[in-house]
Amino acid sequence: MIRINENYQSLQASYLFSDIAKRVAAFQKANPGKKLIKLGIGDVTRGLPDACIKALHAATDEMASDSTFRGYGPEQGYDFLREAIAKHDFQARGANVQPDEVFVSDGAKCDTGNFQEVLSLDCKVAVTDPVYPVYVDTNVMAGRAGNWNKETGRYDGLVYLDGNRENGFIPALPTQPVDLIYLCFPNNPTGSTATKAQLQQWVAYAKANKALILFDAAYEAFITDDTLPHSIYEIEGAREVAVEFRSYSKTAGFTGTRCAYTVVPKECMAHTGSGEAVSLHALWNRRHTTKFNGVSYPVQRAAEAIYSPQGQAQIKQLIAYYLNNARYIREKMTALGYACIGGDNSPYIWIDGKSDSWAFFDKLLNEAAVVCTPGAGFGKCGQGYIRISAFNSFENVQEAMERISAVLR
Amino acid sequence: MIRINENYQSLQASYLFSDIAKRVAAFQKANPGKKLIKLGIGDVTRGLPDACIKALHAATDEMASDSTFRGYGPEQGYDFLREAIAKHDFQARGANVQPDEVFVSDGAKCDTGNFQEVLSLDCKVAVTDPVYPVYVDTNVMAGRAGNWNKETGRYDGLVYLDGNRENGFIPALPTQPVDLIYLCFPNNPTGSTATKAQLQQWVAYAKANKALILFDAAYEAFITDDTLPHSIYEIEGAREVAVEFRSYSKTAGFTGTRCAYTVVPKECMAHTGSGEAVSLHALWNRRHTTKFNGVSYPVQRAAEAIYSPQGQAQIKQLIAYYLNNARYIREKMTALGYACIGGDNSPYIWIDGKSDSWAFFDKLLNEAAVVCTPGAGFGKCGQGYIRISAFNSFENVQEAMERISAVLR
Repeated sequence: MIRINENYQSLQASYLFSDIAKRVAAFQKANPGKKLIKLGIGDVTRGLPDACIKALHAATDEMASDSTFRGYGPEQGYDFLREAIAKHDFQARGANVQPDEVFVSDGAKCDTGNFQEVLSLDCKVAVTDPVYPVYVDTNVMAGRAGNWNKETGRYDGLVYLDGNRENGFIPALPTQPVDLIYLCFPNNPTGSTATKAQLQQWVAYAKANKALILFDAAYEAFITDDTLPHSIYEIEGAREVAVEFRSYSKTAGFTGTRCAYTVVPKECMAHTGSGEAVSLHALWNRRHTTKFNGVSYPVQRAAEAIYSPQGQAQIKQLIAYYLNNARYIREKMTALGYACIGGDNSPYIWIDGKSDSWAFFDKLLNEAAVVCTPGAGFGKCGQGYIRISAFNSFENVQEAMERISAVLR
Repeated sequence: MIRINENYQSLQASYLFSDIAKRVAAFQKANPGKKLIKLGIGDVTRGLPDACIKALHAATDEMASDSTFRGYGPEQGYDFLREAIAKHDFQARGANVQPDEVFVSDGAKCDTGNFQEVLSLDCKVAVTDPVYPVYVDTNVMAGRAGNWNKETGRYDGLVYLDGNRENGFIPALPTQPVDLIYLCFPNNPTGSTATKAQLQQWVAYAKANKALILFDAAYEAFITDDTLPHSIYEIEGAREVAVEFRSYSKTAGFTGTRCAYTVVPKECMAHTGSGEAVSLHALWNRRHTTKFNGVSYPVQRAAEAIYSPQGQAQIKQLIAYYLNNARYIREKMTALGYACIGGDNSPYIWIDGKSDSWAFFDKLLNEAAVVCTPGAGFGKCGQGYIRISAFNSFENVQEAMERISAVLR
């Protein structure tokens, strides 16, 4: 008899975005014709950079002709892209990453979700709270999270690292030994950023405990403070203990185009039960080549174009546009008396709503016709907060903040 | 201490394509200037259909403008594509598949590799021999295959269903109970095809044993015999016991463009340990939305264009071109006195070389400068056979067969 993976039955249905959708639909039904401004989901809204568009057209033309057609490419990505990544995203910042340590993929969500497959089922996993739900859910599916505890509102088998106002949503190191740590800076959902000194502590912890850090840097392009690290490989020793995930989704508006990559340094090791060190690069290479077949060729050309002088200028403009929205939102909310994190080196503004997350969400929806995301949806430490996203037109952001100001003033 | 998934250590290094590459490189070094004709790897060689090229350009233009830009799409695929698939690929053939049962993805390799994740780790898995290696390796990674047995050249935990000259490489039903069965028709690598009566036996077996069939139909577009089923859902009752994988890689030359899909019917069930039936559609939906973020929007538009009248005419022409190559290869090899399977409803011709697979491979390489694939690389039942692929220009195929004829005559 065919049986299911019963770990799936421990998954808690995520009501966050479906709950939001239901409340929004109810509002729209009750208020037909009312213009709703969506600052909820973290999806970009502006067209792709022109350099990427040109590259997509040119690669499409290549695919039309037998003489320039491309079939299966290397599963790890074309050298032209891996080389551009190593040079521009790492070596230019003094971080040692080689092209053959880069695995091009179709999404950081996929890679952060899949990477745990090459690790043992009984490793102890630490996540921050609030947290991007994919880190938790993929470990539940694999069976590492234990049972859902209704009383604590958490999985018994996971270690939760609390973010709060006191630590500025940069959680402290775990007080019990853990093997695998998910970190995300600039953070989704809180917009908090980690300094070099803070990341150094994590690298030192990982080395001391032979732990592995899965570092999600999908929002690094929004860092404007020159003292902040963009990559964990800017920290000495990180190559031995950290895997890094990057994405073009927010960097260049690729949420619907799909391209990302993962860096697994050659020195990064995990161990067998008998203590023998095994290269995670070799394991991930085996996983990637067996279960993945490479990113669409025109899309890889579009990603390469991001690194051209034109592409670099265009994404800087794109990011500056969203960061200007973020600054504006943060200033207005601060002026209204609400404490904010993020919005300076991140497209997200994390706002202490001084009330229940959902109550605050409902207030903004019903009285200002603005959609945000209730922080409680990202973990119990998110209760009382809301996330506002800067991904929209400046005109819409202005209008949203006028309406919110009228409601909260 | 972070530990690895030790199942990976049971993986047998696949030397097949790297061995081929080494022998080819050695030949080229020894014979500089000699034109090599590659009929080995199953990768298409002709440009994308014009309808797909037009759709890629048009969708790229949409991505350029804020007003038509597309960000995150539904993880399961856009409705425009799911509806076209259900209508043209299934309903038009009398098979009941609904749009919301279709999960669009970036590859059948990914989906056939990933689907086992939603199933229990102790289910008994049956594969055919010869076999597409992904079915085996992904079960080894999950821990279902047991130990590699050097004496048998097989994994102790898998059930192997032998293909051979007597059964025309359509293996018989298992003689011991199995829970999960991987089938692929038209078959890679053998090119064998299953009749409705044969598939009916498999569906009946699955129903009687509460087993699940994972049916890989990536090559269905090459079926020319009207009596052969293209989909397992043409068999009554299959919706309860089968998941089907399809790909545009060979259908429309999408090996480098990346689009495929998986059908999970709503009636298809697996069970908990206590015998409760659980919908695989719901489980796969949860897996797909958690670990995947949808296929690139321009690529989905290109896939949709395959179903336009122009697209249909163009892919028919494309497939007819490769099938003409296949027919030509089969006729020549048959005339030379070699027994062949496939090449009529499949782009692969599976040839009894009447000698060791690698010896035959070496003979064709060194004496005819033609690259094929040794059948032994696909399992012990492949020993003695070679696979020749029809994916090349007709001119190259003609020249290859002239050279082979000169060597084997």
